[in-house]
Amino acid sequence: MSFPAVTWQCLHLDRHTAARRGRLHTPHGSVETPAFMPVGTVATVKGLDVAAVAATGTEMILGNTYHLALRPGSELVRQLGGLHQFMGWNGPILTDSGGFQLFSLAQMTKIRESGATFRSHIDGSLLELTPERAIAIQEDLGSDIAMVLDHVVGLPCEPALLEDAMERTVRWAARCRSCATRSDQSQFAIVQGGLDTNLRLRCTQQLVNLDFPGYAVGGLSVGEEPREMYRVLEATVAALPESKPRYLMGVGRPEDLLAAIAEGIDMFDCVLPTRNGRNALAFTSSGTLRLRNLVHRDDGRPLEEGCPCPACLHSRAYLRHLFMAKEMLGPILLTAHNLTYYQRLMRQAREAIEADCFEEFRVRAHTRWKQEEP
Amino acid sequence: MSFPAVTWQCLHLDRHTAARRGRLHTPHGSVETPAFMPVGTVATVKGLDVAAVAATGTEMILGNTYHLALRPGSELVRQLGGLHQFMGWNGPILTDSGGFQLFSLAQMTKIRESGATFRSHIDGSLLELTPERAIAIQEDLGSDIAMVLDHVVGLPCEPALLEDAMERTVRWAARCRSCATRSDQSQFAIVQGGLDTNLRLRCTQQLVNLDFPGYAVGGLSVGEEPREMYRVLEATVAALPESKPRYLMGVGRPEDLLAAIAEGIDMFDCVLPTRNGRNALAFTSSGTLRLRNLVHRDDGRPLEEGCPCPACLHSRAYLRHLFMAKEMLGPILLTAHNLTYYQRLMRQAREAIEADCFEEFRVRAHTRWKQEEP
Repeated sequence: MSFPAVTWQCLHLDRHTAARRGRLHTPHGSVETPAFMPVGTVATVKGLDVAAVAATGTEMILGNTYHLALRPGSELVRQLGGLHQFMGWNGPILTDSGGFQLFSLAQMTKIRESGATFRSHIDGSLLELTPERAIAIQEDLGSDIAMVLDHVVGLPCEPALLEDAMERTVRWAARCRSCATRSDQSQFAIVQGGLDTNLRLRCTQQLVNLDFPGYAVGGLSVGEEPREMYRVLEATVAALPESKPRYLMGVGRPEDLLAAIAEGIDMFDCVLPTRNGRNALAFTSSGTLRLRNLVHRDDGRPLEEGCPCPACLHSRAYLRHLFMAKEMLGPILLTAHNLTYYQRLMRQAREAIEADCFEEFRVRAHTRWKQEEP
Repeated sequence: MSFPAVTWQCLHLDRHTAARRGRLHTPHGSVETPAFMPVGTVATVKGLDVAAVAATGTEMILGNTYHLALRPGSELVRQLGGLHQFMGWNGPILTDSGGFQLFSLAQMTKIRESGATFRSHIDGSLLELTPERAIAIQEDLGSDIAMVLDHVVGLPCEPALLEDAMERTVRWAARCRSCATRSDQSQFAIVQGGLDTNLRLRCTQQLVNLDFPGYAVGGLSVGEEPREMYRVLEATVAALPESKPRYLMGVGRPEDLLAAIAEGIDMFDCVLPTRNGRNALAFTSSGTLRLRNLVHRDDGRPLEEGCPCPACLHSRAYLRHLFMAKEMLGPILLTAHNLTYYQRLMRQAREAIEADCFEEFRVRAHTRWKQEEP
């Protein structure tokens, strides 16, 4: 096997936690880790053009196999030069495999060993997604990192079903690995196994034996207690190879990011900053603000002093007005602000790791988050 | 009377048409004319932040008294530093008086000599707008140019009603003029009179006697034939003083702008580039494009070669995809493109006037517009 397209370089290990400061190298440039990837589901981070996404400090984004396969179709994206060219994002892109959407969004999903059949959430048409097809789509898209197709189950889940889904995830990962044809794309495997650490460890071991360029932890942040998530995460990460990047899928809140970084996670994606921003919730270093609240009606202050984002050129009163008047600019500005906040938090986390004071940084961040309204 | 806050300087008169190249001086900077003002109804040009508006080449924008008085209220805007500060636009702003919205948007409007009563289109509450109140609101907003309150009627209109509305518009203009208190704001009068050139001329003469710093032509582009509009416009403009800026309200299509410039109009506003942009219609120098059309599905070309707007970093296929997927970025990018196109057209018109070749420019523009789909 040739050298993988995507590699991770360790720059520093925090002395007091498992936090890692590193750099991800991809065919479309490098990414400082720990890193947060905004979600650009259908080839757009909702509400922001690519220059505005880059201005938030974002280096890498995520696209969705399931959505892009449905609309506009991966063949069209390939024909137009691939996802980078199609959406005008020249930095690294990771594409999810569709496994999570089969579970969360598709209708009447049926999983067989060969793959999944489901009905499109857009027009109800009957479609099939196999491990081979998930990779073929992602090769059409031309993302830097392609995720293997995994079998995601809801929690709580009957043990036999959970084990079955975990074992299928491993078999599907092997099929994905063996059908790869692009040397400029790396596949990351996904560890499943619910909240059962034994299943997680078995899954991890089998995937590590397949020697992927990177590993993701999937199936978490699906409604379980945060404490449960961290227990599973700690056990899983401990079994992952130190030299490979680690990606916690679909997580999450700022406090989750810092907790997971302390466990040794390098990469994140989540719709929270963008989706909540569109719904008038702002993240700041002193906590969250609900912009529709009357308390902001005549507040001349920005969301956060010193924040360089375009929302913070304005008063909270103006931002509230935009949401009350249902103006597009409200979601646009709050999306930019929340991503800028997330990327600033990541940068501060990286600096704290470099200075061997990540745990102090995390405690201080928690203290500050309690200043604003809940 | 002191020197007006807003003045217009003539730079050049086209030798072959009535087109004028000039510069509007305001307390918030100067504006090259002929100029197009994007509509920022409730303190936002829909979908664009102020930096994106400026990037289109826009120097001056329009806000709406009616909308801003309803939400968030002019007192709040004043308290937060005025409209410039509130929305973060440091360039010149013109505010419409609400006269047109009383006609087009408000419910159950009743016009009396004292003013208008109407029900809010937002919550049905009963409100009053008098000439004095329209000016007080605009002084709260702190716009550079305030429009007098006019009595707008639909066309066709019974002659007696049309004359009555015209005469009331003049009396209301005098009341607006005499209640002004801000020296950093100039009022523009509005010529009414429907399609009756005699009424238009009488209205113009009476308003000119009141010596306003600028004059608008209102009540046009409300469904009449373009030929009718130009006939009225020509007669009206001929009666306006040469030294004052002339503003054609609510117009319009690119061909209307060029026709009106040829008649000596200096300023325009219209929702067309922004509203049509949100609805997937793109203006280009070779005509309009409906981005939802299947023909654009796999078209790798930009809307217009060489256009510096953020939409033209992308293919028509990508823009179509955004509209088909109902993504916010579609309206955002097409708004930016259309305004960039309108401002480029205005710049080319100014250059053509300077070169005494405005008519040739206009003919060439018409020829090019016929290249694309209708």
